[in-house]
Amino acid sequence: MRRVYNFGAGPGVLPEEVLKQASREMLGWKKSGLSVTEMGHRGKEFSEIISRAERDLRTLLKIPRNYKVLFLQGGASSQFAMVPMNILKGKKEADYIFTGQWAKKAIDEAKRYCKVRIAASSEKSNFNYIPSQSEWKLNKHAAYVHITANETINGLEFHWIPEIKNTPLVADMTSNILSRPVDISKFGLIYASSQKNFGVAGLTIVIVRDDLVGKTLSSTPTMYQYGVHAKNDSRYNTPSTYSVYIAGLIFKWVIKKGGLREIEKINISKAKRLYNYIDQSDFYTSPINPSDRSRMNVPFTLGTKKLERSFLNYASKKGLVNLEGHRLVGGIRASLYNAMPEKGVLALVQFMRKFEMKYG
Amino acid sequence: MRRVYNFGAGPGVLPEEVLKQASREMLGWKKSGLSVTEMGHRGKEFSEIISRAERDLRTLLKIPRNYKVLFLQGGASSQFAMVPMNILKGKKEADYIFTGQWAKKAIDEAKRYCKVRIAASSEKSNFNYIPSQSEWKLNKHAAYVHITANETINGLEFHWIPEIKNTPLVADMTSNILSRPVDISKFGLIYASSQKNFGVAGLTIVIVRDDLVGKTLSSTPTMYQYGVHAKNDSRYNTPSTYSVYIAGLIFKWVIKKGGLREIEKINISKAKRLYNYIDQSDFYTSPINPSDRSRMNVPFTLGTKKLERSFLNYASKKGLVNLEGHRLVGGIRASLYNAMPEKGVLALVQFMRKFEMKYG
Repeated sequence: MRRVYNFGAGPGVLPEEVLKQASREMLGWKKSGLSVTEMGHRGKEFSEIISRAERDLRTLLKIPRNYKVLFLQGGASSQFAMVPMNILKGKKEADYIFTGQWAKKAIDEAKRYCKVRIAASSEKSNFNYIPSQSEWKLNKHAAYVHITANETINGLEFHWIPEIKNTPLVADMTSNILSRPVDISKFGLIYASSQKNFGVAGLTIVIVRDDLVGKTLSSTPTMYQYGVHAKNDSRYNTPSTYSVYIAGLIFKWVIKKGGLREIEKINISKAKRLYNYIDQSDFYTSPINPSDRSRMNVPFTLGTKKLERSFLNYASKKGLVNLEGHRLVGGIRASLYNAMPEKGVLALVQFMRKFEMKYG
Repeated sequence: MRRVYNFGAGPGVLPEEVLKQASREMLGWKKSGLSVTEMGHRGKEFSEIISRAERDLRTLLKIPRNYKVLFLQGGASSQFAMVPMNILKGKKEADYIFTGQWAKKAIDEAKRYCKVRIAASSEKSNFNYIPSQSEWKLNKHAAYVHITANETINGLEFHWIPEIKNTPLVADMTSNILSRPVDISKFGLIYASSQKNFGVAGLTIVIVRDDLVGKTLSSTPTMYQYGVHAKNDSRYNTPSTYSVYIAGLIFKWVIKKGGLREIEKINISKAKRLYNYIDQSDFYTSPINPSDRSRMNVPFTLGTKKLERSFLNYASKKGLVNLEGHRLVGGIRASLYNAMPEKGVLALVQFMRKFEMKYG
């Protein structure tokens, strides 16, 4: 079957090699005679799969020993509540950096559990930049400072790590984890759901420093307690086993590609190719401040909604699919996650050039 | 590859036909050029998959129109909190029937949100029977009555539906849903996670009567609110898309098998074959009251732990795997979910006979 180039923001494209291996192993994993889908979560086969996945993730991200890695369910949307429920630690306030729609969701949910202070915001300029740290008004009573490392809808990304003293830094890295090296030790907690850069929806990884695990708000459901999952090696109940397996295959694929330094080079090159083309054209426009543009999600606009509809329609016929902007902002959006090959970006730019020649 | 007979209690065996289709479609679903793992959850392809899955489930279980079907994450362990958080409706008490380890987990979690009354219990006799309704001491202030329709660890099953007036009946059907027809209208709410009779771990289905959706405890996280998921057609955030796809394939497989009446006949026949063999033997023992024995999970014991270890060891060499009893109770346990073929049970009984001849 002819595969298309899938520019969807998530669930997004997966490496073809990984899909091929998954297909081959669907009826039986190694010599087990069992499909991964059929393995007991405490059995020796699945234990091997989840331990290996954790080991490979620790290697890739150089996760220090004093951090737990948890394999959970419920997506980043669950973390929006789990973070305050678990790490307020008796404090009643938290600082959030307001950079777009996903930050907004995290903020709205946190407000249900603590007093949220917006330490910095780019709302007034329609989220077209990341406020530099010199603008942040941090609050010394905050239990933590929360950032959204990449905003998939607006197409903004932190290309730097804030330096925060004495207060844990928390990051939603759902849409850029594994796209570049990151110094984990600068963070108290990182969370990311799987359906962008490490696979099948249904898995959320939490990387949390040991001292932040333990005390929770009294109303916290057992399944929302990091401590319960940490104590049970992410198998307090049945985890999303197949998503863990696919994540493991993807970690191996990233290692084979040369690790995060190499992946970052490719991601820079892919994003540059697309942004450069947009910038030299008068037909396509990127609304985002150049130094804060996301490498993962590239939103752009054409002159009219009608032109955008034609663009999407023709692109789709050429096998370039899921290029619609998010329903909240409209326009076009090309997501360039790790698994999007460079030739996919090349095909998109070629298409954009032809489209501009015809309609520009 | 030689496939084994997998008697694991869950994640459990899947129909080979379903695995073959999943393997074939892994790189591309229909003519989409996309793997199901790569589909946006709001795109037209996945919308077709989830709508079809819901339609088929409604057909199989004859779900009345005034019930919502929700596709959630987090397993039954999340429902243990979500049920009281969502359906106490201002009341402060709930009745639970205490029939084993899974009922205990539901009870312990509910205690964090309301006053739990144990309306009936078989704890004193080591959970070897289901208390008949005439023994139940229901409390008129209870917001709901909770049962565990099948206890996977102890091997007990409700073969009847309690008649409760004016109070919603809630059932954890994780391990026997789709194994038999059930009159949904007798229940206020049913929940079940996928990894027994409808597929890959990571999906939890909630079937809930409309009037029970809406009001929640004030501390309830957004992702724990049935109303939020109902309003967003189970796509408030990214659901476990691949698990929904596999569930849909399994619903189709059950329909093709002739629906729940036919499935029940096969399940009765499989369970009968195994229990009959156990009962005629002095070597194997079932501790459960015959009229309450589970068709899904058949625990039994041999004279000594040493014999049990040999049994498991030899069985595994013959391709009969995951027969260990749960770590809390020990012994042997054969799970006979829908996807366990009759010839698997036949192979197990033949093995048991040979083992008895050798060691009995």
